[in-house]
Amino acid sequence: MTLSGSITSGVHRLTLRVYYEDTDFSGNVYHANYLKFCERGRSDFLRVLGLDQTAMFSEGAAFVVRRMNCDFLKPAKFDDVLTVETIPREAAGARFELRQRVLRGEEELFTADVTAVLVDGRGKPKRLTPELVKAMGTTTAGGQLTADKLL
Amino acid sequence: MTLSGSITSGVHRLTLRVYYEDTDFSGNVYHANYLKFCERGRSDFLRVLGLDQTAMFSEGAAFVVRRMNCDFLKPAKFDDVLTVETIPREAAGARFELRQRVLRGEEELFTADVTAVLVDGRGKPKRLTPELVKAMGTTTAGGQLTADKLL
Amino acid sequence: MTLSGSITSGVHRLTLRVYYEDTDFSGNVYHANYLKFCERGRSDFLRVLGLDQTAMFSEGAAFVVRRMNCDFLKPAKFDDVLTVETIPREAAGARFELRQRVLRGEEELFTADVTAVLVDGRGKPKRLTPELVKAMGTTTAGGQLTADKLL
Amino acid sequence: MTLSGSITSGVHRLTLRVYYEDTDFSGNVYHANYLKFCERGRSDFLRVLGLDQTAMFSEGAAFVVRRMNCDFLKPAKFDDVLTVETIPREAAGARFELRQRVLRGEEELFTADVTAVLVDGRGKPKRLTPELVKAMGTTTAGGQLTADKLL
Repeated sequence: MTLSGSITSGVHRLTLRVYYEDTDFSGNVYHANYLKFCERGRSDFLRVLGLDQTAMFSEGAAFVVRRMNCDFLKPAKFDDVLTVETIPREAAGARFELRQRVLRGEEELFTADVTAVLVDGRGKPKRLTPELVKAMGTTTAGGQLTADKLL
Repeated sequence: MTLSGSITSGVHRLTLRVYYEDTDFSGNVYHANYLKFCERGRSDFLRVLGLDQTAMFSEGAAFVVRRMNCDFLKPAKFDDVLTVETIPREAAGARFELRQRVLRGEEELFTADVTAVLVDGRGKPKRLTPELVKAMGTTTAGGQLTADKLL
Repeated sequence: MTLSGSITSGVHRLTLRVYYEDTDFSGNVYHANYLKFCERGRSDFLRVLGLDQTAMFSEGAAFVVRRMNCDFLKPAKFDDVLTVETIPREAAGARFELRQRVLRGEEELFTADVTAVLVDGRGKPKRLTPELVKAMGTTTAGGQLTADKLL
Repeated sequence: MTLSGSITSGVHRLTLRVYYEDTDFSGNVYHANYLKFCERGRSDFLRVLGLDQTAMFSEGAAFVVRRMNCDFLKPAKFDDVLTVETIPREAAGARFELRQRVLRGEEELFTADVTAVLVDGRGKPKRLTPELVKAMGTTTAGGQLTADKLL
């Protein structure tokens, strides 16, 4: 296990634990927290690709979520160990589409289709570089990119 | 202004403030927190209809979110005063569809189409009573229902 | 009721509701969330005094919490209506001491002694202006201060 | 690295990452989130000792935080890798005292003295078993305890 997860066959997988803070009084994980889990997955996917979001941000660039279509299939519980899968689908223009799943073992608990957009400091869409597009689409090819090639 | 908002022409409106806790280091509201704002809106919509979710829960019934299609249109900021609109669309079987919007003044910041399902203590779908369906669909007609008629 | 609460006899009081997001699977409010409630109280106390934290921040000044001694006395539950009391104690140098309480009716659920510090953009302590010290200590005297007198 | 951290010389250490969700618009970790990090540390400390909090809870027993004296020393930032240290101090009656620290490398960012209390299903204090007291105080001695010996 690594802190940031890893990419295998183009799928990033992050393992995480459900703590008190993630649950609500129904006994299950609070629905909005699956989006937090997915954001951890996306951040670590970018990290494993070699992209430094802190450096990006200091240069006035950031990924923002534009759309997220979420299916809440089964509840996760306190103490569960979950896997967040992040699967890049398409990257074009300023837009980056991906599919995410939260699993407990083989059991699918949550899925989302996510559209993220690269924006500049004023929130305007900013074209993804060919290197970034390539890195997202060919994550199986390996080879870490440096952040300066990605923006 | 009332703590639980109010229903006018079939639309529930709740006013809330953006605090430190709602923002992230990008300077904007963290994306998953719009779902929290919407859940506050839904809870208060049910409250204004006369539905006591604590009583429901102690009888083993609860609404859970099954699907949520979210559009993040413009960022909210610290100190903003926001309105959460909750608009019931359809209630049938165990399912309850609604549209939610988060606005800053007239400006639309976030929208979501939400499917909620009434479940029993074991998470099985549970049919909405005719009274509950009617209350949700005819919120303009007024007349508070007591919780015992709703489950 | 007002969105930002109000100051009476030197005590700021904010009314808020407990939602799903505030609870955990124990059925009670998650302990760290009392600190969120208190931060809402402090933000609205400053707001009612006439202090604009967004403007402060854009000028590189912010209040940060340095110390917080917290007593968790009784649990709050879903649907509870709570009052957050903020009582200024002492303001000197860069430091601002206050006492906060979270109540359900007359029942005390949580108390904290809080030390906040005014810092500049690099996190260095920054002396409170006499106007700000006076405003904090004489909140009963009324008379809103403009933000430019406070920094 | 293990998901639940490990105990060395009586100190439990958990490694975690700072994500978007943990920060606020000041650019730093939101103050209340250090309490979440500490709760993850305490949960995993109990887990490594062999204590199953889900099983405890289903038998009507739970640890609750009674007091927490918190010092916020330096800010953590997005992307930081942090260590949460949990150091048991004293366990007697229903009460369990511990010291927690959040570090970035060798740098101390946050410390807290925590009093937790074991309570039954009605929130009444419940005496810690000798086995649990011993386990907490002699964590270096090793030897996992089964949950049934601990309650």
